[in-house]
Amino acid sequence: MKRNVKILGIGSYLPKRIVTAAKIDEMIGAKTGWSEGKSGVKQRHFVEDETTSFMGSEAAKEALKDAGLNYDDIDCIISGSGTMEQPLPCNASLIQKQLGLQHSGIACFDVNSTCLSFVTALDMISYAIHAGRYKNVLVISSEISSVGINWRQGESSILFGDGAVAVVLTKSEDTSGILSSHMETYSAGAHLSEIRGGGTKIHPREHSEKTKNDFLFDMDGRAIFKLSSKLIPSFIEKLFKNTNLSMNDINMVVPHQASAAAMKIIRKKLNVDETRFMNIIENYGNIIAASIPMALHESIKQGRIERGDKLLLLGTSAGVSIGGIILEY
Amino acid sequence: MKRNVKILGIGSYLPKRIVTAAKIDEMIGAKTGWSEGKSGVKQRHFVEDETTSFMGSEAAKEALKDAGLNYDDIDCIISGSGTMEQPLPCNASLIQKQLGLQHSGIACFDVNSTCLSFVTALDMISYAIHAGRYKNVLVISSEISSVGINWRQGESSILFGDGAVAVVLTKSEDTSGILSSHMETYSAGAHLSEIRGGGTKIHPREHSEKTKNDFLFDMDGRAIFKLSSKLIPSFIEKLFKNTNLSMNDINMVVPHQASAAAMKIIRKKLNVDETRFMNIIENYGNIIAASIPMALHESIKQGRIERGDKLLLLGTSAGVSIGGIILEY
Repeated sequence: MKRNVKILGIGSYLPKRIVTAAKIDEMIGAKTGWSEGKSGVKQRHFVEDETTSFMGSEAAKEALKDAGLNYDDIDCIISGSGTMEQPLPCNASLIQKQLGLQHSGIACFDVNSTCLSFVTALDMISYAIHAGRYKNVLVISSEISSVGINWRQGESSILFGDGAVAVVLTKSEDTSGILSSHMETYSAGAHLSEIRGGGTKIHPREHSEKTKNDFLFDMDGRAIFKLSSKLIPSFIEKLFKNTNLSMNDINMVVPHQASAAAMKIIRKKLNVDETRFMNIIENYGNIIAASIPMALHESIKQGRIERGDKLLLLGTSAGVSIGGIILEY
Repeated sequence: MKRNVKILGIGSYLPKRIVTAAKIDEMIGAKTGWSEGKSGVKQRHFVEDETTSFMGSEAAKEALKDAGLNYDDIDCIISGSGTMEQPLPCNASLIQKQLGLQHSGIACFDVNSTCLSFVTALDMISYAIHAGRYKNVLVISSEISSVGINWRQGESSILFGDGAVAVVLTKSEDTSGILSSHMETYSAGAHLSEIRGGGTKIHPREHSEKTKNDFLFDMDGRAIFKLSSKLIPSFIEKLFKNTNLSMNDINMVVPHQASAAAMKIIRKKLNVDETRFMNIIENYGNIIAASIPMALHESIKQGRIERGDKLLLLGTSAGVSIGGIILEY
């Protein structure tokens, strides 16, 4: 079912501190050039004093300005993030407070499907917006990966960045809308990409020199890619079903920025050339759920997409999930 | 907008270990009778070796059986919980794996608005079910509070319990449906009920004898109640607006089981008598987001509600949020 939902505005925030690939090489004791060669990331931003709610609120302010709306127009704030500022309460509440909207009553909650959290939040809330439940919704992905990186795991430590993106969604009065969406989860890979400690299973009180790696990001990238890449063709088929569109009709693929190597293989699988495949990993790294909306924001800023274009948002996440949305921008 | 969504089945799981009020008094060094007098909780269940995903999967199996459905019928699993088993991946994926559905592709994600997570998940997914996106959805609240209790905070430590509840939602072919729903968040109270440590702001590596309380539940119950209780009358008015129903038409109020004292005041504010107000706190304690569906399950098991009845699900949560759903069961 087409949902008459429009991305009316978008904004982002990047931490002030830029960390280059050369700096990463130095940090992990690798030869200069190693991390960039392996990950395709030339630089990323890492927080110094910025919090999730601070970054999220800065991105939200920019998105509201871009949409030409005021705080009063917003009736729902959703955090679509894979990381949390605090275990309790939810990110969206903390962002509402940071925005100075603590007495507004604007509904706040979080949606989490790790790297796909933005896509899942956009997908789910689109039905409620279409039905008239909410008028103008802020969906915010604000991610701090740097605090949980295991610097001894070369493969994963060189990939990540921090940052936040917000969009304002509203009911569409024109042809803009979500044309199709689909999600599949294969928990056979649930432990291929995880942080085992910090929840109810392994409480922070169990943190020690011996257990410390349980509280850091742990990934078997090769195994995840093996699992997810073979599932992509049938996933794409289901996503396009009932749309009377094909990949040729897509003006821009906006993929999750998992890693340069993974993105290259996926692009070839989709059979689209570089002009139709938004790749921003070299300047941002993988910023978890903020990756897809950040690539969307860059594609708008660079003038590579315009209103009326058909976009494919596509990603994989820990879980392991594959998710996608076809929309008219 | 009425959403044609039916709660087709419900199931729950309680940890094997029962902890009485007398035992709690002993643990916190209080006089026998103190914790029950203060909280109204005679007993609660605490996990021994059970995990969130184990409890959630047991509840899900019972809900499926109650609905007369098989695993094959389910196309979405949502965790609506305020606590996480691991920071990554999401609870729903871990529950999918525990159910042995790791190759199923069933979409999995989490919705989190702390104690209102079940209500928010039910509310949001109802639009997608009504629109035909998903056929049969498992919404699961599986909560372990016991691991994060601060036993030196008498007021909050005596309240909580662990447990899980699952419902199967499907498109309604009869008069069952969600008639109205509403949510408001006032982050002025965001830090009145929180766990500060364990997310990106205070990483578990910072756990120490000095910081340990940051990683435990911290609540100013009186301040939360003061904030939320004065908001309830206008909240209720908005929830009932456009329904042509009044509180007199509600067969059963199914409230969040925050504390016996808070529930008593809310019941009086709503002006409903005890027969129309499901109170299960004495045997369960406050089981976070599982409280409302557990009270629903008990009301069904005890024969206190039947198909066609009008129910009001109502609660407050950390954030601070107020949320409610009016549904025909």
